Amino acid sequence: MDSEFDRDTAVTLREPGVYDAELSAGWTIIQAVNGGYLLALLGRALGEALPHPDPFTISAHYLTPSVPGPAVIRTETVRAGRTLSTGQASLFQYAEDGTEVERIRVLASYGDLDALPDDVRTTAKPPAIPPREHCLGPSDGPAPIPGSSAITERLDIKLDPTTLGWAVGAPSGKGEMRGWFGLADGREPDPLSLLLTVDALPPTSFELGLTGWTPTVELTTHIRCRPAPGPLRVSITTRNLAGGFLEEDAEVWDSADRLVAQSRQLARAPRG
Amino acid sequence: MDSEFDRDTAVTLREPGVYDAELSAGWTIIQAVNGGYLLALLGRALGEALPHPDPFTISAHYLTPSVPGPAVIRTETVRAGRTLSTGQASLFQYAEDGTEVERIRVLASYGDLDALPDDVRTTAKPPAIPPREHCLGPSDGPAPIPGSSAITERLDIKLDPTTLGWAVGAPSGKGEMRGWFGLADGREPDPLSLLLTVDALPPTSFELGLTGWTPTVELTTHIRCRPAPGPLRVSITTRNLAGGFLEEDAEVWDSADRLVAQSRQLARAPRG
Repeated sequence: MDSEFDRDTAVTLREPGVYDAELSAGWTIIQAVNGGYLLALLGRALGEALPHPDPFTISAHYLTPSVPGPAVIRTETVRAGRTLSTGQASLFQYAEDGTEVERIRVLASYGDLDALPDDVRTTAKPPAIPPREHCLGPSDGPAPIPGSSAITERLDIKLDPTTLGWAVGAPSGKGEMRGWFGLADGREPDPLSLLLTVDALPPTSFELGLTGWTPTVELTTHIRCRPAPGPLRVSITTRNLAGGFLEEDAEVWDSADRLVAQSRQLARAPRG
Repeated sequence: MDSEFDRDTAVTLREPGVYDAELSAGWTIIQAVNGGYLLALLGRALGEALPHPDPFTISAHYLTPSVPGPAVIRTETVRAGRTLSTGQASLFQYAEDGTEVERIRVLASYGDLDALPDDVRTTAKPPAIPPREHCLGPSDGPAPIPGSSAITERLDIKLDPTTLGWAVGAPSGKGEMRGWFGLADGREPDPLSLLLTVDALPPTSFELGLTGWTPTVELTTHIRCRPAPGPLRVSITTRNLAGGFLEEDAEVWDSADRLVAQSRQLARAPRG
């Protein structure tokens, strides 16, 4: 528990199925609490409430913007099966009069990644990302994430220069964002931190020439394998920007060349 | 209401937010009720319960196998916003002693597809599927769907011959399934029928040389555009079969070459 991520996603049992939490200001982008960090908090609470430890698939619908400060997570065991359990969880914060305001609701099916057979028959290939030393982070020049964002200090992200055109005023026009991902304090990846990883890179809309906010409506993540220690590679793709919405498909690969997470989100496109 | 699909997905208000339904035996594969048909039923109930008409993103977790017969759908309005509403719904059936058994639970965000702007900036291209007259359906030779399946009579599916190797004992080894989709009685597509379309083709696992059941754990569908009248093209891809699970990514294109739906499901891989 000496990592920032574990400390800031800790939950405290209040009563069966109900957990108190504190949303840290350390995981904000501009003023918004990062959606992946929130998902990891909900994922941790469900892992404690359900009979199985690992999120296999978790679908989150984002309702109202979260702010740093106290929160409560209410979970429900929907079904407890032999190899999979399904649960629901909501994260609430408090209005000035003390009433609970729901921020996010998730449905998830949990299992035990360590109990899965070793078979892998995949045609997916790791993304073509240059070696880490040829990729760029906030300390390598003009800050690639605009504004003051506490989260950048907690992440060790190095972006593929071919997806960084937006940072120098020359977006590629392609809906792609790729890079290396780690936690700044060296905490190794696990299924919970993968829930952060899938929503931690700058939005693909930057490379489409759009600036401004890209709020997530819904984000579903499949955790397919316990990640090996070491840096992760993340590739995000948007193929369809239409009608004011876009999808972001993320893949996360571990140091052993395993596809460890797949996610898709529906987000509102920025107006810019 | 003279289409089989509309008749068989009808819901009747029992009390506010609660709808009675009858699962038709006409949408079964072997003995199982098709998951896309069930999703369309839940989608219809939520469209009646929420202030917005169209599913923008709907995430379904499948809990227990549904059977033809009576069901009840219980909905909850989670949040009603200006442009989006979020709702939850569960479909229950009845045990012998009359208690309700939950079959599926969904979380969904609804909006109004007709209120979206016309902007389209997409790099997605329609799938390369031969003309419909060069594709093959159940009446064109050896039945491509094994076993007796009532649903095949209600669908007008013509599969790309390059994804039909499995039907003649020579699966391609690629996790791909493509074809033309329509309803057999000519009922035109709409957002609700798209929820059926994304889960209506044979599983990609057949082309991976695996026979047997591929039960859905979770299925999330984004409806991106109201489909134009006419036949739909569906392309399904599996890239990662590992640890006994696989994902199926589906795209649905309409006759106007618009990407109208994107879905992804996590399913258990067959053992065969």
